[in-house]
Amino acid sequence: MKKPEMTEAILAAKAQKKLSWEQIADKAGVSPVFATSACLGQNSMPKEPADRLCAALGVPGEVSEALQAFPHKTWDKTVPTDPVIYRLYEIVGVYGETMKQLIGEKFGDGIMSAIDFSMTIEKQPDPKGDRVVVTMNGKFLPYKVF
Amino acid sequence: MKKPEMTEAILAAKAQKKLSWEQIADKAGVSPVFATSACLGQNSMPKEPADRLCAALGVPGEVSEALQAFPHKTWDKTVPTDPVIYRLYEIVGVYGETMKQLIGEKFGDGIMSAIDFSMTIEKQPDPKGDRVVVTMNGKFLPYKVF
Amino acid sequence: MKKPEMTEAILAAKAQKKLSWEQIADKAGVSPVFATSACLGQNSMPKEPADRLCAALGVPGEVSEALQAFPHKTWDKTVPTDPVIYRLYEIVGVYGETMKQLIGEKFGDGIMSAIDFSMTIEKQPDPKGDRVVVTMNGKFLPYKVF
Amino acid sequence: MKKPEMTEAILAAKAQKKLSWEQIADKAGVSPVFATSACLGQNSMPKEPADRLCAALGVPGEVSEALQAFPHKTWDKTVPTDPVIYRLYEIVGVYGETMKQLIGEKFGDGIMSAIDFSMTIEKQPDPKGDRVVVTMNGKFLPYKVF
Amino acid sequence: MKKPEMTEAILAAKAQKKLSWEQIADKAGVSPVFATSACLGQNSMPKEPADRLCAALGVPGEVSEALQAFPHKTWDKTVPTDPVIYRLYEIVGVYGETMKQLIGEKFGDGIMSAIDFSMTIEKQPDPKGDRVVVTMNGKFLPYKVF
Amino acid sequence: MKKPEMTEAILAAKAQKKLSWEQIADKAGVSPVFATSACLGQNSMPKEPADRLCAALGVPGEVSEALQAFPHKTWDKTVPTDPVIYRLYEIVGVYGETMKQLIGEKFGDGIMSAIDFSMTIEKQPDPKGDRVVVTMNGKFLPYKVF
Amino acid sequence: MKKPEMTEAILAAKAQKKLSWEQIADKAGVSPVFATSACLGQNSMPKEPADRLCAALGVPGEVSEALQAFPHKTWDKTVPTDPVIYRLYEIVGVYGETMKQLIGEKFGDGIMSAIDFSMTIEKQPDPKGDRVVVTMNGKFLPYKVF
Amino acid sequence: MKKPEMTEAILAAKAQKKLSWEQIADKAGVSPVFATSACLGQNSMPKEPADRLCAALGVPGEVSEALQAFPHKTWDKTVPTDPVIYRLYEIVGVYGETMKQLIGEKFGDGIMSAIDFSMTIEKQPDPKGDRVVVTMNGKFLPYKVF
Amino acid sequence: MKKPEMTEAILAAKAQKKLSWEQIADKAGVSPVFATSACLGQNSMPKEPADRLCAALGVPGEVSEALQAFPHKTWDKTVPTDPVIYRLYEIVGVYGETMKQLIGEKFGDGIMSAIDFSMTIEKQPDPKGDRVVVTMNGKFLPYKVF
Amino acid sequence: MKKPEMTEAILAAKAQKKLSWEQIADKAGVSPVFATSACLGQNSMPKEPADRLCAALGVPGEVSEALQAFPHKTWDKTVPTDPVIYRLYEIVGVYGETMKQLIGEKFGDGIMSAIDFSMTIEKQPDPKGDRVVVTMNGKFLPYKVF
Repeated sequence: MKKPEMTEAILAAKAQKKLSWEQIADKAGVSPVFATSACLGQNSMPKEPADRLCAALGVPGEVSEALQAFPHKTWDKTVPTDPVIYRLYEIVGVYGETMKQLIGEKFGDGIMSAIDFSMTIEKQPDPKGDRVVVTMNGKFLPYKVF
Repeated sequence: MKKPEMTEAILAAKAQKKLSWEQIADKAGVSPVFATSACLGQNSMPKEPADRLCAALGVPGEVSEALQAFPHKTWDKTVPTDPVIYRLYEIVGVYGETMKQLIGEKFGDGIMSAIDFSMTIEKQPDPKGDRVVVTMNGKFLPYKVF
Repeated sequence: MKKPEMTEAILAAKAQKKLSWEQIADKAGVSPVFATSACLGQNSMPKEPADRLCAALGVPGEVSEALQAFPHKTWDKTVPTDPVIYRLYEIVGVYGETMKQLIGEKFGDGIMSAIDFSMTIEKQPDPKGDRVVVTMNGKFLPYKVF
Repeated sequence: MKKPEMTEAILAAKAQKKLSWEQIADKAGVSPVFATSACLGQNSMPKEPADRLCAALGVPGEVSEALQAFPHKTWDKTVPTDPVIYRLYEIVGVYGETMKQLIGEKFGDGIMSAIDFSMTIEKQPDPKGDRVVVTMNGKFLPYKVF
Repeated sequence: MKKPEMTEAILAAKAQKKLSWEQIADKAGVSPVFATSACLGQNSMPKEPADRLCAALGVPGEVSEALQAFPHKTWDKTVPTDPVIYRLYEIVGVYGETMKQLIGEKFGDGIMSAIDFSMTIEKQPDPKGDRVVVTMNGKFLPYKVF
Repeated sequence: MKKPEMTEAILAAKAQKKLSWEQIADKAGVSPVFATSACLGQNSMPKEPADRLCAALGVPGEVSEALQAFPHKTWDKTVPTDPVIYRLYEIVGVYGETMKQLIGEKFGDGIMSAIDFSMTIEKQPDPKGDRVVVTMNGKFLPYKVF
Repeated sequence: MKKPEMTEAILAAKAQKKLSWEQIADKAGVSPVFATSACLGQNSMPKEPADRLCAALGVPGEVSEALQAFPHKTWDKTVPTDPVIYRLYEIVGVYGETMKQLIGEKFGDGIMSAIDFSMTIEKQPDPKGDRVVVTMNGKFLPYKVF
Repeated sequence: MKKPEMTEAILAAKAQKKLSWEQIADKAGVSPVFATSACLGQNSMPKEPADRLCAALGVPGEVSEALQAFPHKTWDKTVPTDPVIYRLYEIVGVYGETMKQLIGEKFGDGIMSAIDFSMTIEKQPDPKGDRVVVTMNGKFLPYKVF
Repeated sequence: MKKPEMTEAILAAKAQKKLSWEQIADKAGVSPVFATSACLGQNSMPKEPADRLCAALGVPGEVSEALQAFPHKTWDKTVPTDPVIYRLYEIVGVYGETMKQLIGEKFGDGIMSAIDFSMTIEKQPDPKGDRVVVTMNGKFLPYKVF
Repeated sequence: MKKPEMTEAILAAKAQKKLSWEQIADKAGVSPVFATSACLGQNSMPKEPADRLCAALGVPGEVSEALQAFPHKTWDKTVPTDPVIYRLYEIVGVYGETMKQLIGEKFGDGIMSAIDFSMTIEKQPDPKGDRVVVTMNGKFLPYKVF
């Protein structure tokens, strides 16, 4: 079973069982962002959470194997069209240099890893309109002098 | 004075006075991310913090006027080359669909605003290597039915 | 049922019943622009108008469910080829800076939202050739100082 | 005098005299959108309004000549980066097919002209946040059968 | 029946009946360029010539309906590869500015319409090698002052 | 003297002497399209017409030498932005396949040369709006069998 | 039968009969380059050699008809990836201006035709490693003065 | 002295002394293609021919040093616009696969080197129009099995 | 059998037999990098190792024939999205000029061949985190003077 | 002093003192690849080696400061044109998937870091032609499960 069919199978079971991504992540024992990204085929999930996730959804073992496979991470367009995703891309464009300045000042010359990395997405209630709070946490990697 | 000369003037004064972005932001009374992005020409700063910032740096009033001007936000390449900024772009590519799924599930159909938006960047000490923590906070905007 | 099949089913029923988009929108109780864009898969329609729309067209309930699903908004080319759509793109190119100047002058630094947004398209009879009148109405969002 | 220097001269005089685009357009006797776009170099202005505009700003006659010259309309990026202009581009992407459907249904096969065309931008006060109202008015041009 | 299948059906009947585009256009009562472009799906043909064309080719009525449908005009590559079409593109590149200068001088500021437009292609015999003569005829549209 | 300075010199003299491209072409003894394209740097002009053209404009001999130099034909954008030129590009997109079909049917497999090529642009008066008539004349070149 | 199926049929018969392109070209009575390019769908072959080629391969008459059809010449990527083809592209990049200079000096202003054109590919034995010799032969076409 | 100034100096001396590229190459003792490409900055020339070339042109020694420097080979556009160079690019597009087939058949799996490579350009007189003959000679490099 | 089906067959047999690429390469008698790249369709493998590889995997003889066929080397995106491959691309961007400088200084003007080339990938254990060691070995090819 | 002027100053002093990159690196006490990349502006060098490097070259202290500044790593074209650099890019294209497979098999799901990374370039004498040996050494970073 390839990753796209795996995603199809998971989405179908999720819709039938009326489970949210948060509920699925809870059953698997990983975070919602990680669980969703693995189910969409962008991360590989270790065997134990993958088996628990499949049991919760009632999907067969080959879905678990597909979840464990190493993905070929890929995305479609250099400039995304969907407004939700474009706004994230715009933030990187507008604030990228700012983030580079502040990371350089606080940590030295280096990067925030996108591999040793985790993320959460929370809802902050607000009477003027609820707010989305995205927290990214990545290891600082200094450039090596050699 | 145009924005690029404004940035030049601020960077020169900052280097001479050996002030960090955090110290500059403190004196202006705004956050470090906002202060840095305004000094780099990507946001407009209201008159009061702009005047305080210029006083702290010892730069003339026309720098403050340039800080208050509305910017034409622009960035150079659809795929950035600098590793710090590319990693952010990669995160949007890998996790964009995941974020759309989770925002949709928590809030309904809509987006996280990149306009009614703020950001912080913090250092999380860690014996295995310090970590960069980026927190984005944007108002949820539901699509309008009309 | 995915959005593309939903669109196919709606277009087939629309052709068979010889209903215009305006008539369909009337039955659903939403505007023609919103109804058309939702039927083409670019907006999600709430349950009540979606059910009324499906009843009017005589299409099954899964079409209504597909209308309610959150779309992944997507379009094909950065520079459109169809002359109707290209002319709109050209207007944005020619008048974009003008609109930015006038919005900035009337409202301050910020944008016209494309999310809290509505649109109408009307026919203005004219002996020298009828005219198309497009009215866009979007909430002004000021940039946040933080 | 070329168009870019003309724009520089007009913006300098406008800033010094503290005139808004609306006031400048009033003095010239044309609409704000047209006046602004001509001053930014994207439209040619007939001699009479161009002379009145230059008189109001106190700029020399060669500015008026430059305003009358036929422009080479040009814009920089196929996908704009500034958020104000990107939102307009996004609207064309999301609603382009919808507009084509509705224009086709109301007028027949043809386009809304971007040449025999005018536009206004108005502010609609609203307690939940003021709204931008953009009205485009273009002649319908049917495709020719030959 | 969609446009691509319509084109397939017409090309098959044309090959079987050994009719040229000129003969087909004659039977339909429109010009060869218009007939060919409509059969290739790039223009919509009114009902009478479409019915005559289908009768001449012996294809069913749904082909005529497809010919009458409004096309979504589309083409594949910004720089065409086929040498016949590339040469036309090259002519636009080499002579575009020249044509703009001469149209501006003869007509004023405005464009040659590509909508209110017709074209013929003729063979001019020449002992040194026959020549292709392409004649384009488009309405001049002056820019509107508003 | 390079081609861009040559064009500058010619445009300045043309404006000062208030000569049209047609008058300049008449004095040089070549067609308006050819004269304009050579003055814009896209064709090389033989010595005799180049000398006559420079005499008529009162520009020095080095302008004539620059007119005779072989140009490096170049244009800026794969998709042009100026509306006059874009409409020509659109015509090639919409009618390219049609022209290939008709040239193939009339002449056999081959192309219309863009090198052994000439062009005229005429004004056709029309009470409903004057029309632009563009006539292209290129040698047919059959593909070689080898 | 379309060109791609034609190519499939020829390649299958060529593999089964263990014939080289040179042997096939010999039987058809045309050159190896022309025969190969026609079999790959990039040139049209006249009836006589096409019939001989099909007889030699033992493929049916519709293959011959497909070989005679006028091709839509197309290639996939502006920058080719296969190393054999990329090296040719690199030669054009590195030596293009040189070739233009030398053609201009030897022949005057004009081009080497890619239509009235032939090519051979030979093997030159060499103890330090055999060499590929590519010879291109194209008619010089002078630009027309008009 | 950088390569672009070197080219400027050589072209100026060449024009003043009215020397052709063939004459310059003869004096340097290398081929015309190699001499031209080195003078245009796309190849490095060894010291002896470089010194002879500079003596023949009467340019100073720093031109010879610049000729000996290793170039950064670069070209401007993935799809060239000048017709001379575009035709070469088109030949690679149309005949690239054919050349790969024939090289593979004659030599085995490998490429024609663009580094261990030479080229000549000759004029072949022909009463129907002179012909350009380009001969490329490159070492065959087989892929390594490891 | 085409290369993609060949790869499918090999991957299926590899998964079923639980063989690593190193084990497969050992049985074939070639290096792991070469074996993997040939199985992925990017290199052709000589008959003997191809037969041994197929015997070890238990796949039929047509897989061996497909392994021996000359590949059309191709890759999908100019900027790769998968993080593993992007990092390699970034290394070429950051260090490309450096490598050119050092190769030029050590060897003279020329290139490292990508055809007469081999590669190994080894694991270097390290208590602070294991390291990937990639060794590339390519013949130096000097530019030819002609 | 900005990075580009720093590079200019270093290259001028290096040419005048006739020092190789290896000699410069030796004096600075870092590797040749690192020294060269820092001098070309793609890496930041710590204070001690930067001061030693500047002393060896006899350049002023502001060059050392520029060497220590954090670079904005940037490169010009997504597909490089210079043959030395293109071959490296081609290797990534041809062997990228292979490297991903082998890294995955040896290390698990993760990447070779381009930040915690070093490189050497050596000359391997060979009677059939010397060989370039490039060794890359990067830390393996496993994807984080969260």
